[in-house]
Formats: sequence, structure tokens, C-alpha cells
Amino acid sequence: MPNSFGKNFTITTWGESHGAGVGVVIDGCPPLLPITAEEIQAELDRRRPGQSDIVTPRKEEDRVEILSGVFEGRTTGTPISLLVRNADHRSSAYSEMKDKFRPSHADFTYHSKFGHRDHQGGGRSSARETVGRVAAGAIAKKFLALATQGPANATTGGAAAAAAGGLEIRAYITRIHDIAAPADALVNFPSLAEVEATAVRCPHGETAARMIERIKAARSEGDSVGGVIQCRVRGVPAGLGEPVFDRLEADLGKAMLSLPATKGFEIGSGFAETLLKGSEHNDLFEVRHGRTRTVTNRSGGVQGGISNGEEIFFNVAFKPTATILQLQKTVDVHGQETELMGKGRHDPCVVPRAVPIVEAMTALVLVDHWMRQHAQCGTFKF
Amino acid sequence: MPNSFGKNFTITTWGESHGAGVGVVIDGCPPLLPITAEEIQAELDRRRPGQSDIVTPRKEEDRVEILSGVFEGRTTGTPISLLVRNADHRSSAYSEMKDKFRPSHADFTYHSKFGHRDHQGGGRSSARETVGRVAAGAIAKKFLALATQGPANATTGGAAAAAAGGLEIRAYITRIHDIAAPADALVNFPSLAEVEATAVRCPHGETAARMIERIKAARSEGDSVGGVIQCRVRGVPAGLGEPVFDRLEADLGKAMLSLPATKGFEIGSGFAETLLKGSEHNDLFEVRHGRTRTVTNRSGGVQGGISNGEEIFFNVAFKPTATILQLQKTVDVHGQETELMGKGRHDPCVVPRAVPIVEAMTALVLVDHWMRQHAQCGTFKF
Amino acid sequence: MPNSFGKNFTITTWGESHGAGVGVVIDGCPPLLPITAEEIQAELDRRRPGQSDIVTPRKEEDRVEILSGVFEGRTTGTPISLLVRNADHRSSAYSEMKDKFRPSHADFTYHSKFGHRDHQGGGRSSARETVGRVAAGAIAKKFLALATQGPANATTGGAAAAAAGGLEIRAYITRIHDIAAPADALVNFPSLAEVEATAVRCPHGETAARMIERIKAARSEGDSVGGVIQCRVRGVPAGLGEPVFDRLEADLGKAMLSLPATKGFEIGSGFAETLLKGSEHNDLFEVRHGRTRTVTNRSGGVQGGISNGEEIFFNVAFKPTATILQLQKTVDVHGQETELMGKGRHDPCVVPRAVPIVEAMTALVLVDHWMRQHAQCGTFKF
Amino acid sequence: MPNSFGKNFTITTWGESHGAGVGVVIDGCPPLLPITAEEIQAELDRRRPGQSDIVTPRKEEDRVEILSGVFEGRTTGTPISLLVRNADHRSSAYSEMKDKFRPSHADFTYHSKFGHRDHQGGGRSSARETVGRVAAGAIAKKFLALATQGPANATTGGAAAAAAGGLEIRAYITRIHDIAAPADALVNFPSLAEVEATAVRCPHGETAARMIERIKAARSEGDSVGGVIQCRVRGVPAGLGEPVFDRLEADLGKAMLSLPATKGFEIGSGFAETLLKGSEHNDLFEVRHGRTRTVTNRSGGVQGGISNGEEIFFNVAFKPTATILQLQKTVDVHGQETELMGKGRHDPCVVPRAVPIVEAMTALVLVDHWMRQHAQCGTFKF
Repeated sequence: MPNSFGKNFTITTWGESHGAGVGVVIDGCPPLLPITAEEIQAELDRRRPGQSDIVTPRKEEDRVEILSGVFEGRTTGTPISLLVRNADHRSSAYSEMKDKFRPSHADFTYHSKFGHRDHQGGGRSSARETVGRVAAGAIAKKFLALATQGPANATTGGAAAAAAGGLEIRAYITRIHDIAAPADALVNFPSLAEVEATAVRCPHGETAARMIERIKAARSEGDSVGGVIQCRVRGVPAGLGEPVFDRLEADLGKAMLSLPATKGFEIGSGFAETLLKGSEHNDLFEVRHGRTRTVTNRSGGVQGGISNGEEIFFNVAFKPTATILQLQKTVDVHGQETELMGKGRHDPCVVPRAVPIVEAMTALVLVDHWMRQHAQCGTFKF
Repeated sequence: MPNSFGKNFTITTWGESHGAGVGVVIDGCPPLLPITAEEIQAELDRRRPGQSDIVTPRKEEDRVEILSGVFEGRTTGTPISLLVRNADHRSSAYSEMKDKFRPSHADFTYHSKFGHRDHQGGGRSSARETVGRVAAGAIAKKFLALATQGPANATTGGAAAAAAGGLEIRAYITRIHDIAAPADALVNFPSLAEVEATAVRCPHGETAARMIERIKAARSEGDSVGGVIQCRVRGVPAGLGEPVFDRLEADLGKAMLSLPATKGFEIGSGFAETLLKGSEHNDLFEVRHGRTRTVTNRSGGVQGGISNGEEIFFNVAFKPTATILQLQKTVDVHGQETELMGKGRHDPCVVPRAVPIVEAMTALVLVDHWMRQHAQCGTFKF
Repeated sequence: MPNSFGKNFTITTWGESHGAGVGVVIDGCPPLLPITAEEIQAELDRRRPGQSDIVTPRKEEDRVEILSGVFEGRTTGTPISLLVRNADHRSSAYSEMKDKFRPSHADFTYHSKFGHRDHQGGGRSSARETVGRVAAGAIAKKFLALATQGPANATTGGAAAAAAGGLEIRAYITRIHDIAAPADALVNFPSLAEVEATAVRCPHGETAARMIERIKAARSEGDSVGGVIQCRVRGVPAGLGEPVFDRLEADLGKAMLSLPATKGFEIGSGFAETLLKGSEHNDLFEVRHGRTRTVTNRSGGVQGGISNGEEIFFNVAFKPTATILQLQKTVDVHGQETELMGKGRHDPCVVPRAVPIVEAMTALVLVDHWMRQHAQCGTFKF
Repeated sequence: MPNSFGKNFTITTWGESHGAGVGVVIDGCPPLLPITAEEIQAELDRRRPGQSDIVTPRKEEDRVEILSGVFEGRTTGTPISLLVRNADHRSSAYSEMKDKFRPSHADFTYHSKFGHRDHQGGGRSSARETVGRVAAGAIAKKFLALATQGPANATTGGAAAAAAGGLEIRAYITRIHDIAAPADALVNFPSLAEVEATAVRCPHGETAARMIERIKAARSEGDSVGGVIQCRVRGVPAGLGEPVFDRLEADLGKAMLSLPATKGFEIGSGFAETLLKGSEHNDLFEVRHGRTRTVTNRSGGVQGGISNGEEIFFNVAFKPTATILQLQKTVDVHGQETELMGKGRHDPCVVPRAVPIVEAMTALVLVDHWMRQHAQCGTFKF
């Protein structure tokens, strides 16, 4: 089931960029969760095209319809089917792509694998597929926030138990091309308003302005840029994640690397921390406010694959958008060398729109492990 | 099934560091594959303790026994059960750990999750669990080498079809602490002999010597160091990997991040490539020797989640070993602050022994996708 | 994923009887299969309400829309999403059910499990959910017919290899209430036309007439009846099914017992054959037309969980419809004893409409195992 | 993973009849369950050969070794690996089977599927594989008994809440060949002692004596007989089972049909109840001792796929043992007609030894659904 993600809270996404629509089926959402189409729509609006002047001007309303699984404002425990119709087809823009492989796109590999492909806008390889992920993630976020509110069921320490308002996930951009936010500007957990304050979703205003200039410059050259997203989660109960294969960081890593255009993932101090010695790197334990806490948090909230109640944080690398409005050398389906000129209305930088997608995938990983923990260990004591 | 990995070629590992033994069950291995205990043993010998003077001196023979699934030298298509008995218990070394959480180990998180833990040597969180992975990986490697030999079934181009000897996986160390091999020393695909030439498994001899010194220095200080492993695969057929969630890089990322002590994964040019523009980063297509190839390979052999037949390469970050022979501040199971002095015979640097483990996990991901491709698309044409 | 079925060719159904619609997502269908909405519609028309005077007169057009996964008339290898909108809501008929548990329905158990239920028409427990199964089954049937046509890839004998036209599945009714078709009338594999000749889908005309009378009599009494469906499959290649848990008969049994109103499953001579001795029951082998065949077929085409190329046949028991238009004693959600009078437009006998559903589930099991066999053993030889 | 069963409490069995041993890995067992090797051994002793004079005289001690997952007498939450070494090999008895297909065995189908087979004693198709199931089932039984004891967490009625001693599973034989226990002799839930009182495990003594005679007569003729096992479960909480595919009866049916030699499964009144009308068949609700109960229990404790708290009961049909000590016509691997004379020490009737296996599979299904219910709905209330 390559189009499904999650073992207990499982989503299956479907749909192509230029077909009838895109959607998702969520299997395993607990019953009685209050959820509305508006709450889902709010997240979809954060990822949709045309929302600012640095993203693609394609017009897609992306209105979500709840087809099943919600009755009188609450989930029923049965599958939740969500549908978003496609709009604004301009498939004539893609006629040249029918026979030519776009460089660094999935055209060649899909053709190799399936012997056939929907050449319009990338078909299934289009980032439009992430509509379903964001819609499902909105439900996952709501679940996590409500399920972790109030007196924590974890008696095991960690910052989680101290969190007043339930689990919270916040992603934002720390670098676009070579413009990076200063490290000391990101010490505090940013508010959603701080992230959404600019079109580029970097909570450091001055840096954000420079990032926007860089993206506009790339667009004016018919070129593209990439960047890095950081994601943080606070209020996580200790105990999420499984030994061995389904470690929390392994599932988070898979989730992020399953997004289009991602090339790297690191948790805690990541690649950089390999420059430290063990004596510098270890997170010592201490007691704070009556709870077992770590003095530092180089582990990024996960030890032995399992959350320790500290803040989770990780970075994700996004390559520059493959579609550029320049003439590029390529090969066609008949094995002949040729050239291709990029057309259409594309994002010169996908990273700002990827921010809500990173949050959605994070929520999906956490809710899945929350449910596993409840199945296996949560409330069960002999 | 948090202790299973792979959907078609599935392994389930079991065992603790100080119990009766460790092992693995492989479900889904095709029949008729020739395999011997010696071939599996050869890979286990590469990861076992005591193999050189820069790893832990613990003595464990790690002899593998094939309990099922192989008959008259060939696999039968039924589950292959492999057993390695534990030896050399010195559990008295662990008595202090019964009540105290070792910093940056899994002690606290296991205790939080399970309300109970096998405190001897880390129990299930011990890297000893990887014995099962390496044993299964030996079978996966053999399968891949044989299945991709000879006239390629892929008519779709890529370097794979040109490979004479079948698919080959090679991992090696590129950095230990701050000692890195020069980039130009690693342009060619190293031979197994070049990697195994030194205890540190860096194929650049001069760098290897300095790495060994650094590891010995850390040990003499009771400290530890980490590093980076690079893994390359050549001879991969185009078409492995699935759209959307089970992208090849997502499954490779999960595989690597499921290993103890890993903190980061990047494929192709990874985090660094976010500094390039699209026009610099795209891998243009050309025809070479009658096949569709890319001029550059910044994608790392994967586009849209699917192999394109070019060489796959990725990096994995390993943190410094958490166990150090120094006095550290910590908390005990009763919530009291205390101190803990590391004891026992541990690796000052786990990275050299991780090299065969990285190869094993790579093989397991690839054989799983090879089987999926055969189920779905490989030979089926209407 | 309780709403998914199949490991390689996986369907996920969603939808309630009185929500926006019902549907299915198919993940894993191989690419390039030619399929049209009309072919799917033809199977849906066999299960829809209002098709004859012995089934519910509810009017539901049940028009299928292909939302994704098919491009230019062929499958692409990506998820196929199918949608059927609901119509003809008369939810006022269900107001009484909001508080009262209908006897032998799922009302009480859903309420116990989920603490909440969509009381309109049974919500998710309604047989309307099977729309998605039948739609997916139409694609599975088409796949099987095409994939098994022509020169068989099985060199292993069995009747399959001799089949000219590819694999064929045929279900029909052998008993309604106490009216059973004579055994000798069902020796030959009935044609689709013979089954569809009467509204009751029993290929023995005289018996069919009596069954129709019995159903009408039950309806006139506000009562209901059940019956038995037999399903046969010819042209099955030898080798489908897995040792141990995923035996072909185990997966067929699960498929049938997952249908609403089923209470029993038996394959081959089933419960009756327990009256034979081994010497009477064993299917001896012989050579016929150069192939290894069994003289008798008491095994029902499956031995050791794996198809042997002979005809597969099995029986499924359906209980009488739980909804009857009579006053029945029951309890309400507040724990008070009460009475409930059945209302609405229901089937006095669900068995005729279940015939295409049984065929669909059979096709889904077989295509899943066909794909597994190709992944593991089909074409792979060292 | 055809050798795995269960989604949350997952077992993977491995091993052949004449290899080094057989075993099972259990993944997902909650931590802290008290369990000893003796408790597992007790169940294995009920299925082992040589336990009475009506089963095979093969001598196999079948001593279980716990290799992992249990520490200081309690489960740790990590995989439990259990090993039983094989003994008493007499593979010379099987030399003739190397080339000849035994009628109604898996020889031909395994050969067709895998192109190769372990011909000694049936290899993986041997009922010896069920050792792993019984061992895992012992742990599942213990879990269920403890987890359902005391004040029920179900406030939803059903007999379960009234059960003093926790969930209990009891299987026994109701028919051997044509000798059936009288229906009125099996009204009460039999005690374990009543079942184990005779070698044939029929709790009605007089019938048991006649069954034993019949089995001995079959053996003396070199022939074999089959029969029917009934299984009952009391103390089941309401709410186990999932809508749609993973209905409790579907999973029980699959579990039973995955056992060697089974040909049929029916729950509640099964095939017989298709002779009733809806008005006769429906289980009306009433209030008893303050709880919502059904007046009758034709549903067999399951409605809409979910347990209703009443007693679960079902029947399983076992065919006569395929191995008979008579000369039978067959075909060899070269496609030549030949004859085969059965040899070796086999059971003239497998049904008595199947009784603990049926119980084990029932326990495995129930514990899996118990865990799913806890993950999804058990303790979670917004």
C-alpha cells in the first residue's frame, strides 16, 4: 500500500494534478472527535496556490468536502473520506511534456516503472497530492491538541506534563538559498502568528524580507531556489515511539523524505553534532519542578527512538524547484536528445507552501504513535 | 509490528543484549536462492565486537545457526529463522544501572514507555539487536547480486543495465569527529578490500590512520566520538521505489534512522544542495552508450522517489557513543538526582562497526522494492 | 486498517448509507489495464436496489465516477478512487432507531464500541458499504481475465492451463430458506446468462421460480428469509495462496465472512466431508491431456492452502434479513425495555443481491494472491 | 508476511517438520504480563504427539525455550521469541515422497508454487508448524484472562461484565466421523477437566468412548477420520471487532481456515439457521440484572462484526487425515502416473490434537482485537 501512511491512524491519499480531484481516506481516527470542514479548510488555505505573490499564481480554491465518517459534528470511528475537486486545468501547457522528460522531475522514472504516465502536470508525482496529507493532518492536529490537554496521563516527567494547552506543532523556514535566520532569533517557540506574518513563513521579520527578495529575484531569472524548514513540537508525552524499526525519528524521517523535493532530514543537533565528543553531547538528567528533565536537548526530544517529553525539533532540506523557465537539455521517450523550455505557472520556491505540509506529516506521525502507545502500554497495568 | 521491517521481504528481529540470544525471521524470501551459513557469518564477522583494537574488546563469537527455510543449500520460500546465542555475560557491570538512568541512553524513555525495563546492557535498545539485521542483510545482498546479474530486464536505460556483475552496495566512513576524507579521494566506487583495509573502514588510507588515532585518543580520555558514513549502490535497475509514501529515499531514510545513534540522513547532494539554484542543481538528461542517462547525479540516483538507474548515494550521521567512562550527573528511578560512572567494555566509536549494518539495511530496502516492482509492474504487460 | 482488504491489491472502502456517498480507493492495481466506467457500472447494476420486484424498491442510480488512477482508458499504477453519490434519503424513516436498538442489527454493538453511532440506515454497518467492494471487484475481475488468458505461464498442470478464455468466477444461489436446487442441476459451470435469467440468480429455472414465490411470501408477511450462495472459479493457475496463515481458503473465508449477514463458509465438500474416511475423501492424482490432475475434487481446488489448478468452489451461508416489518421486543440506549416496529423499504431476502458481491470478493482475493505470487515466485528463477 | 497473524498482537511462526526446530516470535505483547515457560509448556503438552493411544506415537518432547522478551518473570514489551527443537527424525520414511505427490497433501501445490520443496514430512505444510501458534496462544490466553478480570471496563452490558473470573475459551469435539455428541449434552459451558477427561476431548463421556473406538477402528484399517470442533468463549467484553473487513467472525474464520485440514467454519447457528425466517432468527433484546442482553443467542455473540458480550460460539470442520496406510494412485514430479503406499507414524484422526490449537487461534484473534479496541476506543473520551 504505497499510498498509505500510518499503522493505527492510517491515511490513504489519491489523485493526480490534472484529474477530477485529489483526496484522502483516514482509517482509524477515534470516534467522538469534534471536527468541522472549516478547521480542515484553514490548513488547506495555508498550502494552496495563489495565496501570496511569491508562490504560483495558479487559482485553486481547494474547497474540501467531508464525504463520510463525521456525523453531527463528531467523528464516528469509521473512515473519513475527504474530497477536493481540481480546477483551473490548462493541460495545453503540458503537451510538450508528453514526449520529453523534464530534468530532475519524475517523468523518466515513472515512465521506466509504469511504462505509461499521466504527463499532465506530473500526474501523481505532483505536489498536489499533498492536499490529502494536509487535510488529514488538520484532523490529527486537532486530536493531539485535545488528547494531551489537561492533567497529563504521563507520570513520568518531561516538559509535556507541564504544558497547559496540549501538544503544539510549529514549522517555519530557517533558510532560503543562502539566506539564513540568525540562530539566536529562533530560541523561543514561535507563535503561529509570527510564522504567518510574512509570505515566506520565517518568524524573523528582517530575514523574511530578504528571503522574499531572493525568491522574487530567482523568479525574474526564470530560476528557482530551495531551503530548510525547522519543525518543533512541544507538549509531547514521554513514551511515544517504538524500539528498533519504528523509532519516532525514523518515522518522522520517512514522513519528511516522502515529501516532494526533500533531500535531507536531521533531528536534534543532527549532522553538526558529529563534531562533538560524547562528554559534550550527552544530555544529562536533572530534576526540575519535580520532574525528570534533561539539562540540554541535543537529542531533540527522542532517546532510543522514544520521546522523552522534551521539545522535539528537526530540520528538513528542500531542493530548488525542478521546473525552471529556461531551456534545458533532455531526452525524449524515443531515446533522442532534445531540449525543453519550462512553461506554466510554477513556484520559484516551494518551501513556504511546504511549511503546513511538514506540520501535517508531523501530526500524522505523532497521532499514529499516540494510538499505538494506548494500544500497547498506555492504560494497561496488571 | 514495530520489530518488523519491509513489506514483501520482511524481517522481524528479536533479542536483548543479555538474554539467551538474538535473531531474525525473514518472511518472503523467494525460493531457490543458494545461501550458506558461511555467507551470513562473513557479514556478522564484520560487525562483531573484538574484531580490532578500536572497538569494544567484548568477546562474542556470534555464530549463526540456520533454524529453518533452507533445504539442501537453497531457500524454500518459507520463513528463514536465524539464531545467534549470546555469550560473555558480565551483568554485574550493570547493577548500578538498575536504578539510574544513563544520560542520552534509552533507559529513561523505556522506563517511561513500558514501566519496566531489562536494565542489563540496555536490553532491547542495545545495538546487539542489529545482529539480526546484518544476518538478514547478507541474504538480501546475495539475492540482489544474483537477481540483477546478466542481461538486464530493464529496457529503460540507466547505468544499471550496463553493470556486468549485478547490484553492489558499499558503505564506508567519510568523517570521524572532525577528521574527514578529502572529497576527491572518494570519487571512484571503492572496492570491499579498500574499505576493509583498515579497522576504521575509511578507504582513504592516510585519513584512516588519523581517524584511528582520534578514536584511540577519545578512548584514553574515557570519551567517545561520532562520524559520518557514506553508502553507494551501483547496478540498481530503474523503477525501484513507489510514488508518494514509500519513496526509495523515504524508506532508505527510515532504515538508517532506525539504527542506534543515528541523527541525520541526506541523499544526493543533501543539505548542501539547498545552496544551489534550480538551474545549477537539475540533472540534465543525455544519451550515453545508447541509454538515457543524467549528465550529473545530484539527485543521488532517485527522482520522484523512484530509482533512475544512476548510482544511489547517501550520508548518515552517527552521534558520539553515549556511554563514556566519566562521572555524569543523572536522576534515578525514584526521581532523585544522583551521579553515574560509566563502566564496562564499550566502543569509543560505533561508526566502524556500523558500516556493515548500513549496507545490510540498504540491501533490505532494495530487495523489498525489487519484489514490489516484480509484483506490480516488473513482468506484467497486457 | 479495518476498512482495507488485500495486501498487494488493496482496497479501502468508505461511506455510510445516508451520508454524501460511498466509495473505494484501490492501491496496487498494476498499470496499463484497460478499464472503463461502464465496465464497473455493469457490476454495480447487478447489486443495486430496485432492479427487480423481489428486492428493496429504494431508488438508487449508483452511478460510479472514476476520480483518479485511470488515464486515457488505462490504469496508471497509482490509486484508483471511485465515488458513488448517495441518493433517495428518507432519514425520517430512521428517527425511531436513534434511541432503540434493532434486534440482530449492529446498533447495540456499534453503540458499545464507539459510544456514538450514525443511526440513519445503519450508518457504516449498512450493506451499502459493499458498493465499493463491487466496484473494485469489477477491476479485479477484468485483471484476472486478461492476466490468465493465452498460453499459461504455469507449466505445472491443472485445468487452468487448458482454459481458453482466462479465469472466470461464477456465483449463484443454491438454496433460499428450505428451497434448494437439485444437486445434479449444478454439475456444469453455469453461464452468466443462466444465472442472470431470473431475479433470484439460481441457474435452475424451476427452482428459481419457487424461490421467488418464497421470497414474495416472506415479504407479504413482513418477514424475511436467508439462503446459501455457491461460488465457482475456473481457470485458476496452480500456485496461488501462501503456506500457513494466508491460505487461499483462509482468505476466501475471511472475505465472505466480512460480508453483512454471513454466518458460515465451507470449501470443497466442507462440513459434509467430515462424514467420509480418508480413503474415500482423498483426491488421487492422474495424468489427463498431459497434465497432472486430480481424479476427484473434494479439496475444492485448494491443497495445503494453495490452488492446484482444479476448479475452486465454496458455499456461503446468509442469515435471514434482520429488518422485518413486525413489532419486536428490544431495549433503548437508556437501558429501558421497549418495542420497535420495522419500517422502511428493505430486502425481504438479501441473497440475490449478494451474488455479485460474493464474486467481487472472490476476485479481490485472487488478484491479491496473483500479485503476491508474481512478487515471490512467479517469474523468478535463479 | 504470509507467516504472520494479527495486526497489534502479531505472531510470526517459522520452522519445518524435519528441520532444526519450530518457533514463533510475538510482537506487540504488552509489558508486565507475568508468564512462565511452564504455562506455555502446559498448552504444548496438550497438542504434542504421543500423549495418548489414539494419536501418533511419534515421540517429541516439545520443550519450549523463551529466548527473549521476558525479564524477571514478566514480559518487557519487546518481541518474545520461543523455540522448540525438533527431535525423533526418521526422514528415511519420507524418501519415496521426494518424487511422488501424496494425494490431498500439499506436495503438488508447494512444488507448483515454489519449484522446490522440503519433502521430509511435508516441510512447512506439516501441522508441526502449529507448535508456534499454541505457544503464542498460551500467552494470549493468560493476557485475556488477566485483562478482563475484576470490575469490567465495559459499562455497556452483556454477560461479560458479570463474569467473575475473566475471559475463558473452551474448545471440544462434537463429532468424529458420524458419531456426534447429543445436542442437549453440550448446553453448559464445559470445564477444562471435562474436556480433558478423555483422549478424544469430547466432554460427553459416553460419546467419547464411541469416538475412541471409531478412531481405533480407522487406524486398524490404515484409514482415517475427521470431525467437528466447537469452540465457546465467555466473558468477552462488548465492542471487540471492527466494522467491515476485520469483523470478529471474519478474523475467527480466517484463523480457523488457516489450520491444516479445516474445510468449514460457521458461527452462531451457521448454515442451519438459513432455514429460519427473520422473525424466528432475530435475537431480541431484554434487560437482565440491569444489563442489556439478548433473549436468544443465534448470532453467536457477534452482531455487525462486533462482540455483544454474549457467549461466542462457532464450529470448525476437519477433513479426515490425508495420510493413510493404503496404496494410492498418484503422479510423480516427472509427470508419470505411479502409486504410493503411506508409511510412517501418523494420526488416524487429527481432531483431538487440534482442540488446543483452535483455542490458541481464538485467543490470538481476541487479544489482537482487545488491543485494537484499546488503541481506538477503549479508554479515550473527549
